Amino acid sequence: MSRIEVVSSVLRANQVRAEETRARLDAAGVACVNLISAPGSGKTTLLQKTITALEGIPCAVLVGDLQTTRDAERLAAAGAPVVQINTGRGCHLTADQVAEGLDRLDLSQIQLLFIENVGNMVCPAGVDLGEHRRVALLSVPEGDDKVAKYPTLFQGADLVLLTKVDLLSVLPFAVRQVEEDLARVNTRAPLQQISTLEGTGMDAWLAWLRALVAG
Amino acid sequence: MSRIEVVSSVLRANQVRAEETRARLDAAGVACVNLISAPGSGKTTLLQKTITALEGIPCAVLVGDLQTTRDAERLAAAGAPVVQINTGRGCHLTADQVAEGLDRLDLSQIQLLFIENVGNMVCPAGVDLGEHRRVALLSVPEGDDKVAKYPTLFQGADLVLLTKVDLLSVLPFAVRQVEEDLARVNTRAPLQQISTLEGTGMDAWLAWLRALVAG
Repeated sequence: MSRIEVVSSVLRANQVRAEETRARLDAAGVACVNLISAPGSGKTTLLQKTITALEGIPCAVLVGDLQTTRDAERLAAAGAPVVQINTGRGCHLTADQVAEGLDRLDLSQIQLLFIENVGNMVCPAGVDLGEHRRVALLSVPEGDDKVAKYPTLFQGADLVLLTKVDLLSVLPFAVRQVEEDLARVNTRAPLQQISTLEGTGMDAWLAWLRALVAG
Repeated sequence: MSRIEVVSSVLRANQVRAEETRARLDAAGVACVNLISAPGSGKTTLLQKTITALEGIPCAVLVGDLQTTRDAERLAAAGAPVVQINTGRGCHLTADQVAEGLDRLDLSQIQLLFIENVGNMVCPAGVDLGEHRRVALLSVPEGDDKVAKYPTLFQGADLVLLTKVDLLSVLPFAVRQVEEDLARVNTRAPLQQISTLEGTGMDAWLAWLRALVAG
């Protein structure tokens, strides 16, 4: 068997498991959002603020990291059930890992499940985890060339969050460049600016999540 | 053949090619540095400033990106021969790609070769490209928890550059946390603070490179 055949069969098995997970979430009435970005784009901080702000919508989080339970500890402090998945050297979460993580949650008690993927702009983009929506984050300090350089992530996103926009005043960054590059690869996903530090854009993000849960 | 066997055989083939590349560089008297970090940590900007500042040491760059030739254009403007390698969906450079890139450079005209890997904190860490030294970059906006969360990259580094330290005054970041986490996984690699914007730490970085070339 060639390497390409092996990889393709692994991806097919992942897709089957992802579809099972989506059906399981649908049956439980749980909406699921997969957050993908480079390390340090602000996924965990955003989720901390989001869980606290989404009063009336019980949430849970599956969080993937190579090592440590730091993110899980930060998120648990925000009051949601959290399952930490350590991937070791694995560069993305897999549908199997998510399915196992779900076994440790009581789906009847939640309406919204966040998956915080391993910090990586490349590998998680090609892997369905059974989510309903995929959110790509890009933070201002990463630079305005990233949509063009990592198109796969942004092509597959349902929503793109431009995070840490409080730093637009101190760092060189052309939002228009991001808008233009995004328009070339994805005409469907809105680009929302957000700053968890200053609160900018939180209302729009929360409204998007509430609509998804109501949907 | 199981997936693990296939992956292992791919890695063995990569290692053989990397050793060939190292021997080829040694024979040509070229020192080679592999730069690895998350997207947006400042690899390209650092190389632009470095190439300009290293007067008397002719440099070249192999730069890996999924898409675009933007980094190559920026680096070529700094006056060095540059080969851009587009990896498509590939999450790291391979020793084969680097060996092919070398064919497009005149090694007799350079003393120092930089490899700017695909922006990714996970996958490039496990792949030898034939370099002599490996430099890991971590930028202040990414957060002070990244050494603990992505230990593989920092374990294998010969030098760790903490970049964008001009932002230490406006972002929450504990340098001591990074120092402590690094001490747990790597006692060999120094941690150098650097800001290409303000010039902080450039002298130490250039001295490290000059010592490597003088070898």
